[in-house]
Amino acid sequence: MGLIGGGPGSFIGPIHRIAAEMDREIELVAGCFSSDPGSSREAGESYRIDPARAYPSLDAMFAAEKARDDGIDFVSIVSPNHHHLPAARAALAAGFPVISDKPATSTLSEAQELTALVASAGLHYALTHTYTGYPLVREARARVAAGALGTIRKLVVEYPQGWLAGEAVGKQAEWRTDPARSGPGGCIGDIGTHAFQLAEFITGLKVVELLADLAAVVPGRPVDDDCTVLLRYDNGARGVLLASQIEVGEMNGLRIRVYGDKGGLVWRQEVPNTLTLHSLDGRTEVVHAGGPQLGPDAASRTRTPTGHPEGYLEAFANIYRDFAAVLRGESAPLLPGIEDALRGMTFVDTAVRASRDVSGWVPLTV
Amino acid sequence: MGLIGGGPGSFIGPIHRIAAEMDREIELVAGCFSSDPGSSREAGESYRIDPARAYPSLDAMFAAEKARDDGIDFVSIVSPNHHHLPAARAALAAGFPVISDKPATSTLSEAQELTALVASAGLHYALTHTYTGYPLVREARARVAAGALGTIRKLVVEYPQGWLAGEAVGKQAEWRTDPARSGPGGCIGDIGTHAFQLAEFITGLKVVELLADLAAVVPGRPVDDDCTVLLRYDNGARGVLLASQIEVGEMNGLRIRVYGDKGGLVWRQEVPNTLTLHSLDGRTEVVHAGGPQLGPDAASRTRTPTGHPEGYLEAFANIYRDFAAVLRGESAPLLPGIEDALRGMTFVDTAVRASRDVSGWVPLTV
Amino acid sequence: MGLIGGGPGSFIGPIHRIAAEMDREIELVAGCFSSDPGSSREAGESYRIDPARAYPSLDAMFAAEKARDDGIDFVSIVSPNHHHLPAARAALAAGFPVISDKPATSTLSEAQELTALVASAGLHYALTHTYTGYPLVREARARVAAGALGTIRKLVVEYPQGWLAGEAVGKQAEWRTDPARSGPGGCIGDIGTHAFQLAEFITGLKVVELLADLAAVVPGRPVDDDCTVLLRYDNGARGVLLASQIEVGEMNGLRIRVYGDKGGLVWRQEVPNTLTLHSLDGRTEVVHAGGPQLGPDAASRTRTPTGHPEGYLEAFANIYRDFAAVLRGESAPLLPGIEDALRGMTFVDTAVRASRDVSGWVPLTV
Amino acid sequence: MGLIGGGPGSFIGPIHRIAAEMDREIELVAGCFSSDPGSSREAGESYRIDPARAYPSLDAMFAAEKARDDGIDFVSIVSPNHHHLPAARAALAAGFPVISDKPATSTLSEAQELTALVASAGLHYALTHTYTGYPLVREARARVAAGALGTIRKLVVEYPQGWLAGEAVGKQAEWRTDPARSGPGGCIGDIGTHAFQLAEFITGLKVVELLADLAAVVPGRPVDDDCTVLLRYDNGARGVLLASQIEVGEMNGLRIRVYGDKGGLVWRQEVPNTLTLHSLDGRTEVVHAGGPQLGPDAASRTRTPTGHPEGYLEAFANIYRDFAAVLRGESAPLLPGIEDALRGMTFVDTAVRASRDVSGWVPLTV
Repeated sequence: MGLIGGGPGSFIGPIHRIAAEMDREIELVAGCFSSDPGSSREAGESYRIDPARAYPSLDAMFAAEKARDDGIDFVSIVSPNHHHLPAARAALAAGFPVISDKPATSTLSEAQELTALVASAGLHYALTHTYTGYPLVREARARVAAGALGTIRKLVVEYPQGWLAGEAVGKQAEWRTDPARSGPGGCIGDIGTHAFQLAEFITGLKVVELLADLAAVVPGRPVDDDCTVLLRYDNGARGVLLASQIEVGEMNGLRIRVYGDKGGLVWRQEVPNTLTLHSLDGRTEVVHAGGPQLGPDAASRTRTPTGHPEGYLEAFANIYRDFAAVLRGESAPLLPGIEDALRGMTFVDTAVRASRDVSGWVPLTV
Repeated sequence: MGLIGGGPGSFIGPIHRIAAEMDREIELVAGCFSSDPGSSREAGESYRIDPARAYPSLDAMFAAEKARDDGIDFVSIVSPNHHHLPAARAALAAGFPVISDKPATSTLSEAQELTALVASAGLHYALTHTYTGYPLVREARARVAAGALGTIRKLVVEYPQGWLAGEAVGKQAEWRTDPARSGPGGCIGDIGTHAFQLAEFITGLKVVELLADLAAVVPGRPVDDDCTVLLRYDNGARGVLLASQIEVGEMNGLRIRVYGDKGGLVWRQEVPNTLTLHSLDGRTEVVHAGGPQLGPDAASRTRTPTGHPEGYLEAFANIYRDFAAVLRGESAPLLPGIEDALRGMTFVDTAVRASRDVSGWVPLTV
Repeated sequence: MGLIGGGPGSFIGPIHRIAAEMDREIELVAGCFSSDPGSSREAGESYRIDPARAYPSLDAMFAAEKARDDGIDFVSIVSPNHHHLPAARAALAAGFPVISDKPATSTLSEAQELTALVASAGLHYALTHTYTGYPLVREARARVAAGALGTIRKLVVEYPQGWLAGEAVGKQAEWRTDPARSGPGGCIGDIGTHAFQLAEFITGLKVVELLADLAAVVPGRPVDDDCTVLLRYDNGARGVLLASQIEVGEMNGLRIRVYGDKGGLVWRQEVPNTLTLHSLDGRTEVVHAGGPQLGPDAASRTRTPTGHPEGYLEAFANIYRDFAAVLRGESAPLLPGIEDALRGMTFVDTAVRASRDVSGWVPLTV
Repeated sequence: MGLIGGGPGSFIGPIHRIAAEMDREIELVAGCFSSDPGSSREAGESYRIDPARAYPSLDAMFAAEKARDDGIDFVSIVSPNHHHLPAARAALAAGFPVISDKPATSTLSEAQELTALVASAGLHYALTHTYTGYPLVREARARVAAGALGTIRKLVVEYPQGWLAGEAVGKQAEWRTDPARSGPGGCIGDIGTHAFQLAEFITGLKVVELLADLAAVVPGRPVDDDCTVLLRYDNGARGVLLASQIEVGEMNGLRIRVYGDKGGLVWRQEVPNTLTLHSLDGRTEVVHAGGPQLGPDAASRTRTPTGHPEGYLEAFANIYRDFAAVLRGESAPLLPGIEDALRGMTFVDTAVRASRDVSGWVPLTV
């Protein structure tokens, strides 16, 4: 694996590295960690890779790696959003499959271009919607698919954070609040896309229209930092999506509640190892990660016995494990791919447009 | 105290009785528990009052009680919504102060009439927004007022229930889903009003416009059972109100989160004895009911030491305690009154209207 | 009902009053609230009873109340421990049934005398082990009795508090740490007895021997404030009882976990409205107060629907409700009585003796 | 790194591999995974190492690895307890530092021999007390050391599990309940040692005497599966250690509560990313992993921002990270070493002896 981005000060770069390597199916061996050659070299040292393989440019990396017998098999893109498309374009052109941080691009038109590029390249493309890697998210999906909740009628997916409640200070905050780098969506692109995708992932439903109210709450902020979106799904189910980065005290509170005519379920990212299931007769069951109640989608992606908490890195590793599987020619139907990329950017684009003049429902058409 | 409503099968009647009497400042001594004389008599027995004071009609009760030296000092109205106005009108005309279950009436025009009646009668009127009786709700209000959260920017108030996810079976369910008895609002009137009032109570802000999406999710239901309402407050703060009665497994999950530019707070009705406070520097403090951190509004309404849980009945009793205070001529500034009645019904009316054609923001004007 | 004790500054007096009256089967009408006549009068006012029935002495109360047609039917003893026996003796001699705060007496020999007195008087005697009044404690007992856990093998009952971690300041703290008033047991008598009784109540098992290690942790304290007791039950099951009043931050953390060869259960007093059940196959079920899963013992002692929390006062009221039932000649098999009184004091006495020289198992023989 | 043990069916082998490699400072390159050559080869494949480096014997591994320029720098011992000493002896003799699963050996005399071997070899030895790797455990230790709790008076450390409540089925269960392989301690050695060490780690106190009651609850089990141990620390503080493997429904519930004269703290392994701190004035603070309140011991061992849960594998990785540091000649004062090994086995030995005839306090002398 070659990393694109993840240079000095990156939060997500080292996390991709750990996640990718956790199951020993992937190894980080090269990278173009920064557009600044010195920074790229410095990052290469921190990742403990061969200094010769910390490249100053994408072109250099692709050329050199293709020339090696033991060159990289794919690239992982972890740079800010506006770099995603150029990086993916170059990688696909050079014949490398791509796994990319989300959102897939910074604009919808870029996502459309990317979709076409992936199709014409005939190469694998995956999107790291990390939270779908949690075993109990996969269990939730399997339970819904098996009919445990009956027909889905309602869902509430929330993604509260508080880290941008003050001034945007630091590398992470700066690019995420700069439309030139993040795209037109701020919070809606950064975390709203996770919530949108998670709800579709668990329920198997697709959003067909939405009503969005996005705002920049912190004075002077050029992108949204607080989002309320009403959703309608293709079976008529009602959804509410709340995402915010100004809710002081909230950390990374992604959570989802799904209700059907027979039951309900609740999952929370910050306590990811339990899934609560309700049934219409008043019974409440708690399902534990690693426990005997889990189906194969969850059980096969669990590394520790019940009571030994797995967390964010393990969920992330499950995404890479799926990606390694598809690269080997195996099936990994739960791995988010280019369709999620396009849907996600369509969601961001539609929500941003809809929010300019909140005047009712707007179709979400991919 | 004389009870109006609360006949056989009533959930809320016995609860009002317990709450009213808990602090021994009020005693239930009379009632017109049902429009059916036999049922009223039967209920009188179950409440263990003097059989002679279980009246067959309001007129009979008011006449007889006024003739007694030890007659009732006020009435408590706990009948279904459509009875609220006639009962209050008769009581006020007979010179009795009124404490009433919410929503205050079944329609906005009734609430406007009631407002005028209360004003002209010059008698006390209170509305049992039970949840404002919880000590930690009052503490939350005090902390916000003292500036602990800074300027309020955002709040999320949710009231999920699941008990109407199936067919509406039983006395409680039947009248609440019948517009002739409940009024045009179903869920929005039954529990949405609590959420609306709680948020204004804690923050001191007033809603100035809203965007509402109400639906009858259960097929054939003539009133809404699932509500999403976006709120704007008079200081520009953004609010989201979610209320539902079809979320299977949810019991009585009223909860509120409030965020300012300096801090945040979280309170949940089902675990009412803790209040969580967050500050911008990352600190999280848990405040306990009965503990030494509480201010006078909370401390004066707590009956047990920390760790001895108080609950719904004690919160309810605090409302009656405030009402007893105002009847004695004392001040009870936190007691919900006729203004809350009118605001609540304006909220229901505005939300129902706004939801008929979801096309943007609608002013809420009282 | 006539109250004995509960004078100015009493925590438990007002709580008994609320609990006794909650279901309108009992009314506080008289009392000898203090051995100081002025204090008794003052307390009478605070309880809002007829001033003539706030008596300066037990003799005065018994004489006057027996002379009335509407005199009290029983007394409730809420004074410090060393008053329990004299008060009960006088009441029984005067022909009044007794309900008493626990521990029943301050010494074992007093409890033995009391047992004989109750037997010879042929009058009802009940002990307010409040926590057995919680609906889910009764549900737990019913589940164990029905075999849901199989054969009980192990239990852990804990009662951590922290309010005596510093100097014993205030009326409550002072008498509880004074052996002349509390008896030889401090923490073990005050809260250890609750834990001991709760475990026997839920499991139906009886302790046959124990190993105790009690200590006065706060320098200079003349009674124990931290207790560890190992228990053996009559079926061979192993128990651990931890009680402490010096665990800073603990409030009133009574909790119990019971394990059999087929399942386990967990209940916590501070979140009393859920009961967690585990089965050997890895399933975890959460049972909610007020919900449809409850058996009659719990359901008949619940006043509110699921999600409307009941707490300590309602649990206490259930004890009084049972006492009212037995006074009416009905059965109330779950009401703690004189056997619990004697067992409890035997437990305290045995634990205090055993702890003087911790040298192995000591039989608990009633 | 070369692994000793961790062959087919091992739970702990793959976990050591993930933990060791997480921070890219260590790589698994060789192993003697089983005493059966075929099994060792098979395991080597599953770990994806060079087949030539999956050795059939320790001798073969040490000889071959010493002959390589890129041979292993140390071994990690993850085989059942009775193999620990022979494996460590051989490794030390061959000049390899050792990191070992706990308990260090199967008997105390073996631990004493091991202590001497380590001393004479002059090589690093570490013991994987995983739970001390959790950032908030290290934070707890730092807070205690800084005096936040005042003088420690009391602690309760519990390690409940339920997985051995039935028959011991499967590889993990079988060797752990076989004294020939586990040593004389069952539960006390397997998990009691973790609890013992965690309490000393956090408080800095040392146990000086104990009273133990161990039992084999499951009929026919030849080792203890349920343990109660009373502890006295060198400053006079009182401790209670509960460990069990027959508590149905408990998963891996290690938790600790520590109380001083100024404050208290609570930490639970199953929700490892919060630490609760209480102070004598009634304040409760919740500290979050990854948050700004953490001191350097915790902050330097955290890989993700607050709200992104880390778990068991990350805690384990912190132990390896410390070991890598000491191998590089750096300081890692929190890394458990040979002293913990000897203390742990002394604890097991003392507890097993003490429990044969429970007759009071037994000194714990290392």
